[in-house]
Amino acid sequence: MEQALLDLRARLAEVSDLSRAAGVLGWDQRVTMPPRGTEARAEQLSTLGRIAHERFTDAEVGRLLDRAEPLVESQPYDSDDRSLVRVTRRDWEKARRVPTELRAEMTLQAARGHHAWVEARRTSDFASFLPYLRTNVELKRRYVECFEWSDSPYTPLLDDYEPGMLTTEVQEVFAVLRPALTELVAAAPEVDASFLHGDFPAEEQRAFAERVVRTMGFDDDAWRLDPTAHPFCTSFSNRDVRLTTRYRPDDLESVWSTMHEAGHGLYAHGIADALLRSPLHGAPSLGINESQSRTWENLVGRSRPFWEHWYAPLQEHFPALRGVELDTFVRAINRAEPGLIRVDADETTYSLHIILRFELEQELVAGTVALEDLPEIWNARMKEFLGIDVPDNAHGVLQDVHWSGGGIGYFPTYALGNVISLQIWDAVRGALPDLDDQLEGGDLLPLSEWLRDNLYALGRKLTPKETIERLTGSPVIDPAPYLAYLGDKVAALAT
Amino acid sequence: MEQALLDLRARLAEVSDLSRAAGVLGWDQRVTMPPRGTEARAEQLSTLGRIAHERFTDAEVGRLLDRAEPLVESQPYDSDDRSLVRVTRRDWEKARRVPTELRAEMTLQAARGHHAWVEARRTSDFASFLPYLRTNVELKRRYVECFEWSDSPYTPLLDDYEPGMLTTEVQEVFAVLRPALTELVAAAPEVDASFLHGDFPAEEQRAFAERVVRTMGFDDDAWRLDPTAHPFCTSFSNRDVRLTTRYRPDDLESVWSTMHEAGHGLYAHGIADALLRSPLHGAPSLGINESQSRTWENLVGRSRPFWEHWYAPLQEHFPALRGVELDTFVRAINRAEPGLIRVDADETTYSLHIILRFELEQELVAGTVALEDLPEIWNARMKEFLGIDVPDNAHGVLQDVHWSGGGIGYFPTYALGNVISLQIWDAVRGALPDLDDQLEGGDLLPLSEWLRDNLYALGRKLTPKETIERLTGSPVIDPAPYLAYLGDKVAALAT
Repeated sequence: MEQALLDLRARLAEVSDLSRAAGVLGWDQRVTMPPRGTEARAEQLSTLGRIAHERFTDAEVGRLLDRAEPLVESQPYDSDDRSLVRVTRRDWEKARRVPTELRAEMTLQAARGHHAWVEARRTSDFASFLPYLRTNVELKRRYVECFEWSDSPYTPLLDDYEPGMLTTEVQEVFAVLRPALTELVAAAPEVDASFLHGDFPAEEQRAFAERVVRTMGFDDDAWRLDPTAHPFCTSFSNRDVRLTTRYRPDDLESVWSTMHEAGHGLYAHGIADALLRSPLHGAPSLGINESQSRTWENLVGRSRPFWEHWYAPLQEHFPALRGVELDTFVRAINRAEPGLIRVDADETTYSLHIILRFELEQELVAGTVALEDLPEIWNARMKEFLGIDVPDNAHGVLQDVHWSGGGIGYFPTYALGNVISLQIWDAVRGALPDLDDQLEGGDLLPLSEWLRDNLYALGRKLTPKETIERLTGSPVIDPAPYLAYLGDKVAALAT
Repeated sequence: MEQALLDLRARLAEVSDLSRAAGVLGWDQRVTMPPRGTEARAEQLSTLGRIAHERFTDAEVGRLLDRAEPLVESQPYDSDDRSLVRVTRRDWEKARRVPTELRAEMTLQAARGHHAWVEARRTSDFASFLPYLRTNVELKRRYVECFEWSDSPYTPLLDDYEPGMLTTEVQEVFAVLRPALTELVAAAPEVDASFLHGDFPAEEQRAFAERVVRTMGFDDDAWRLDPTAHPFCTSFSNRDVRLTTRYRPDDLESVWSTMHEAGHGLYAHGIADALLRSPLHGAPSLGINESQSRTWENLVGRSRPFWEHWYAPLQEHFPALRGVELDTFVRAINRAEPGLIRVDADETTYSLHIILRFELEQELVAGTVALEDLPEIWNARMKEFLGIDVPDNAHGVLQDVHWSGGGIGYFPTYALGNVISLQIWDAVRGALPDLDDQLEGGDLLPLSEWLRDNLYALGRKLTPKETIERLTGSPVIDPAPYLAYLGDKVAALAT
């Protein structure tokens, strides 16, 4: 390989190592760290983030890119090297705009904000969280100032998670979704799901969840599953994937929570070896990544074919379900019913929770709401969107982790993930005509391998729109398949 | 504070953060990481080690030291700032001698060697480990060449763990120990300890171990205890202490293994806040640190006063012991009996295992043995020192983790720790005349707090010899109290 490419790869590998090391510290913080380790951990994460940023934004990277670009221009657009140089150039130009000290401050305050939020949510005390939120929002405004934007000051934040996406594009998708979803929610019949609440021992939940994950296509000894307060997935290579979940002793949500995180995990696990330790080691966007967690959680994990195979094993683990028919179970796990908590929301109401947050976030960034009014505004909109009364802030504005760590601009990617998951699912259906039979037989590998070979292996080589175009033939984010899917679901509930 | 000191502290804090981050990665690797994460983890650790070394050995640190030294020279010798500047100068001069690339290569090969050793020990296959050992020994020889030494090429390696100690000084201590210990082992009567082997459920062992640790003087929420294959202790601040232990279902060794690691943990926990994120954040040497793990494991954990309180709780957890008298139990846990495995060795035979390794290591470094002959030499000396036949390499030359990671020069610190523990224990006895009563009452706090205030809080402010002098009145490492203690122990076995 030419020297400039070798040097570029070595520099990028170092930055990647620092970021993955920070990932290990973050996993540890959320899964194993003693609570009093918080302050030191915040300093450590701040230092790692600052050094990684310094090394990546160094002028030397620009010089290496200048020398590497002519070496790759004759290669195919999606070759490893040409993709590396193109994506690194884009990331580097963007990262150079943010001063190292601002980035370090954001990392430090994110850790502090997270710590404060844990306690504030526990006591439902928004006032104690307010100063941390204020600090994080102010840092985000300073961050926005580092960029030019045409449509909305929210766009630079969105771009961190959904590269190339404009706020107005999201608004257009959500403008279609909101009325359609409201109509679907109103049309959905009440469904008895009382048997999904009961006595479900955590140890049995863990055993069942691990049993399912083992069939999803992971290599042995390349993943683990741990309990945590707020489930997430992270990875430190494509062979060290960390799933987390939450076992509540009175429901079975861990089944879908685990399949959700395992969907993220399969993405990380499927990235081609040649892309490791580089900016291509990842997914094109959070929306694309989320489309896959949603695929495994919902399109697989709530489908009748899947449960044709898995319902008997589930009943083995949980005798209380032995008197419940498969039809009744499948209907219950597909019900549509407004609720308080985003992470507990069903597929039909879920995106309404997101649209509420998306609107609030734009106002936060624009400064058109006072932060102390947030709980009141939140509660009023929950009433308007979902007809729900919020009893306290722990079940309202404090329910989500994201804002505590400065993660503004992140929420819309969840709803985009829902939409994209159906666009890709249509492609999967075309490629795997026997999919339902395979799911009924408990064989998840054809699906897992197709997604790995056609999507996960690509890493960040292509932009989100290029990725969607490669799989679906069009770069447009189209809510029609998602709404059709939900329409069928709600119709089936009424039969 | 003067600017040069502030700048120096900021730079040192950054280096400390990188080292602690590497510590988190190391803990994760040994406690939680999926096996296939190994290769990526080695790269990450190599990168962190290299950057920390680069930042610490930078010429700028020397300039900051030059400017800081005049600012602190009028302060007391052991003030925080003067100690910081003095110790940093010494560390910096030493670290500057080692090229960054050599250090990175050592880190990388240590991780690979560790991985190979795990498999080699499992299969008792020395040949498969040999190339990794050879690489690590050769790297150590290159490392030694970075230093001047007067007595032995082993001294620069020893100095990493026991700063300021000469190989000849260790030889002198061991020359007294070896014949005295051989004599004691020969004089020790056989003691029935058969009841210490049996059915001891791991979950009960964990419960008992945690119960003891909770009385040792840790703040709540500042430590955790996890199972691992090869117990160790690490910490990422004085409020994030990680103990590990091993529960074997057929013996109770986890009791003392856990108290041993908790002794290290108390040291880390007791370091003064003002010394965090600096080179003073640590113990003066591994020997001094080990003196405290040995204090808690042996001087406390095998003493009759301790078990006057704890034997009844132990019997609650393990009904099989209910028919065993306290006297019989205490005698069994203090028996002297040659065995194959260092980490299972009793107090009387333990240091003989170390002296064997110390002699071999000097020969490895000098190149006076062929590496492929190591198993044979090991086995012959085990016969000579302890009268034991070694059945296979897993129970012989492959038993210890240290050489796999390039940790040559480390072993003697264990025996020095034994010796020093008794020197400090004499000081403890003088300061706490009611210690036995306190132990009998289950009150470990007076001991824990005295050691914290008089030793642990000092961190690395003083050299090992200065530290010993401060506690005992003399800087000399004196084996007499240790031999007297063992003499009393062996005599008590015969009564």
